[in-house]
Amino acid sequence: MKIFHGVLRSGNFGTTRLEAFSDGVFAIVITLLILEVRMPSLHALAAPGADLSAELWKSLLELGPKILSYILSFAYVSIYWVNHHQLFHIIQRSDRGLFWCNSLFLMLLAFIPFPTALLGEYSHEYVAVIFYGVAMMLTAMSFLLMKWYAVDIGRLVKPHIEADILRKSVLKVWAGPVLYMLAIAVSFMSTTAAIMIYWIIPVIYFFPTKLEHDEAEAKR
Amino acid sequence: MKIFHGVLRSGNFGTTRLEAFSDGVFAIVITLLILEVRMPSLHALAAPGADLSAELWKSLLELGPKILSYILSFAYVSIYWVNHHQLFHIIQRSDRGLFWCNSLFLMLLAFIPFPTALLGEYSHEYVAVIFYGVAMMLTAMSFLLMKWYAVDIGRLVKPHIEADILRKSVLKVWAGPVLYMLAIAVSFMSTTAAIMIYWIIPVIYFFPTKLEHDEAEAKR
Amino acid sequence: MKIFHGVLRSGNFGTTRLEAFSDGVFAIVITLLILEVRMPSLHALAAPGADLSAELWKSLLELGPKILSYILSFAYVSIYWVNHHQLFHIIQRSDRGLFWCNSLFLMLLAFIPFPTALLGEYSHEYVAVIFYGVAMMLTAMSFLLMKWYAVDIGRLVKPHIEADILRKSVLKVWAGPVLYMLAIAVSFMSTTAAIMIYWIIPVIYFFPTKLEHDEAEAKR
Amino acid sequence: MKIFHGVLRSGNFGTTRLEAFSDGVFAIVITLLILEVRMPSLHALAAPGADLSAELWKSLLELGPKILSYILSFAYVSIYWVNHHQLFHIIQRSDRGLFWCNSLFLMLLAFIPFPTALLGEYSHEYVAVIFYGVAMMLTAMSFLLMKWYAVDIGRLVKPHIEADILRKSVLKVWAGPVLYMLAIAVSFMSTTAAIMIYWIIPVIYFFPTKLEHDEAEAKR
Repeated sequence: MKIFHGVLRSGNFGTTRLEAFSDGVFAIVITLLILEVRMPSLHALAAPGADLSAELWKSLLELGPKILSYILSFAYVSIYWVNHHQLFHIIQRSDRGLFWCNSLFLMLLAFIPFPTALLGEYSHEYVAVIFYGVAMMLTAMSFLLMKWYAVDIGRLVKPHIEADILRKSVLKVWAGPVLYMLAIAVSFMSTTAAIMIYWIIPVIYFFPTKLEHDEAEAKR
Repeated sequence: MKIFHGVLRSGNFGTTRLEAFSDGVFAIVITLLILEVRMPSLHALAAPGADLSAELWKSLLELGPKILSYILSFAYVSIYWVNHHQLFHIIQRSDRGLFWCNSLFLMLLAFIPFPTALLGEYSHEYVAVIFYGVAMMLTAMSFLLMKWYAVDIGRLVKPHIEADILRKSVLKVWAGPVLYMLAIAVSFMSTTAAIMIYWIIPVIYFFPTKLEHDEAEAKR
Repeated sequence: MKIFHGVLRSGNFGTTRLEAFSDGVFAIVITLLILEVRMPSLHALAAPGADLSAELWKSLLELGPKILSYILSFAYVSIYWVNHHQLFHIIQRSDRGLFWCNSLFLMLLAFIPFPTALLGEYSHEYVAVIFYGVAMMLTAMSFLLMKWYAVDIGRLVKPHIEADILRKSVLKVWAGPVLYMLAIAVSFMSTTAAIMIYWIIPVIYFFPTKLEHDEAEAKR
Repeated sequence: MKIFHGVLRSGNFGTTRLEAFSDGVFAIVITLLILEVRMPSLHALAAPGADLSAELWKSLLELGPKILSYILSFAYVSIYWVNHHQLFHIIQRSDRGLFWCNSLFLMLLAFIPFPTALLGEYSHEYVAVIFYGVAMMLTAMSFLLMKWYAVDIGRLVKPHIEADILRKSVLKVWAGPVLYMLAIAVSFMSTTAAIMIYWIIPVIYFFPTKLEHDEAEAKR
């Protein structure tokens, strides 16, 4: 118990550098996601010497499914950024435990470009669809872990935030993992249905929680 | 209407992290733009074993058109950075709506290295020239959307900014999309003429708006 | 002596930009570490045309050892970030000397993705295992140098920090280099044993020093 | 004259975001510099299947000249960072002109990894040696331009900084371009001699100017 305290609860800083560091990782991940789109097509173009205009059109049209899978991942990363932002808005101080939770989350976030590229290239293969779902589920669960640590274990949030509203906010996070598991199960039958579930998830998180809504109301 | 309010208008933060995150994306995009220039030439150099000095000169000279297209995109990204900076200078608070507008803009900004590379390699192909124009037009329109949201929908700007001057500033943003459409139409006849229009656009945005000018005067 | 003073001790700034710059490098290094995992597998997949699902599973399973070596390096970089954060928490001002120490540390930190990739691909080759150990030892020693400069040479730390506790903290840093040297010696006999030592090191640094613990206690 | 004023002198901001943006570019450039070292060797290793340990040693030893050229460029970029930091330490506000100067400087800074890679691979080719010198000279001159703009044109520096000391600082900047030109001239005869001049330049800039020294003295 004392060791646990020493490892996680020591350190007592503001959250400025933790946020700046996370923003750096977010910015790089989001930029690398989109950059991936172009590489295969440019390599393909280098090979043939025939009708260049027609080849270019064809290559650009073939990017379609890839661009879709990148927009999807971009939506996920953007929503994580908003939620990360809002979580740290109510966190008033940080300790080692929060840092390790954040690090685990960033490690999984930084991994997203790989399953995204795989889904973009093999969207009809259930292996790629499941891999995407597992990666996204782990990321969602690491974010949930960080939220849970900050609120219930570390008691790092501002005291005036009502525990009741926070619990609702924590509950919402579970919607993600459950839907990911559903999508993984569905992907054995239909990869298209699974991908549709992946598109529904960011739509759910697009809507703010009651806590966020009330805060906005209170401040007008 | 209530849902619209909940989705967009909730959240009430300062703009510090939004700016830091955007700066991160800007910095990465601008660095990756230039980095692209070198890759093809270095690969080409690895193959032959003949007169190395002559080969090196030739490879460096062949970079010419590519460097031009990167300077062009660098100018665009730089100008967006200044305008982004100036927009957030008059914005006093942020909400979810502003974040989504900013995210859409960053998604398109992060895409710029791809059309830039395409234009650098196929500057005489109308497909590449049109693709560049469409990508740039979408980026410009997403910036316009953010400006319009911040000023007219979100009312996030400082109250002392005169609506009248702001409208002029919004008008100026339209010059971009119109010129992009002109360039796209022209590119079917002459890719050189279209590229010349692309070079004119950053020159226009290089000049500050009346609002910016007046602010500078007021502060001397 | 005067030259030494001019080169190292001149300049007298806050540490804000030094921290922001370091955070940028940390964020990029940590993102690039994970990104490396996917490249080889995607290239391998492009070649065959046989049973795609089976090929995908095989490729993903083969990533296993690589993912392990990246988690290891991620742990190292994360721990450096925490320690860097905590060091600058007690540093109250910076000079040129601190900057050069920090630069040397960042140069070695930025190098980490290379030995990590090498270890992931050749984990049974003692050459790769030694190379990883040497790179990690140099990084640890450059961090030690910075800590020593800040505390003993530059006297840049806050005066109320007790020298005695600081010395303990400096001592702890030595545990790293010694264990790296042990691992390097061991790797000639068993690469597995050497890699196990590499996994023990982050565990040691996971636990906070007495200084950090006392500070946390004092602030409750 | 009025147009000149409108284009350059309008805008009146703090320098916070300009510094953050520049730090982002610096961090990315410095990380990418080092990352380049590993690529060729890893590709080379994939081909042969013979004595792996011996191949690995050979590949790592062959990296030697490349690592040298990266340390050189790392020193340059680090010194630019310190000087950029110190310049913005005495600048109290920014305008559009300063931004454009800074942008031009960053554009050339972001280009550095390309000539560095070229010098690392073809250190005995005068073409690569000259190309490195020209790129470095242009970067140095763009930094000089920014310094000159901030001090003499924009009058953006703090008023208590003595003009006389500043001029000395501006003079020092010229040492770089002159030495680059000398190195370029020398490289036709001896590439080794030219590279030695490239190593002397960062040593000169390693020493702080009188202004920096006096400031440090004043603050003790």
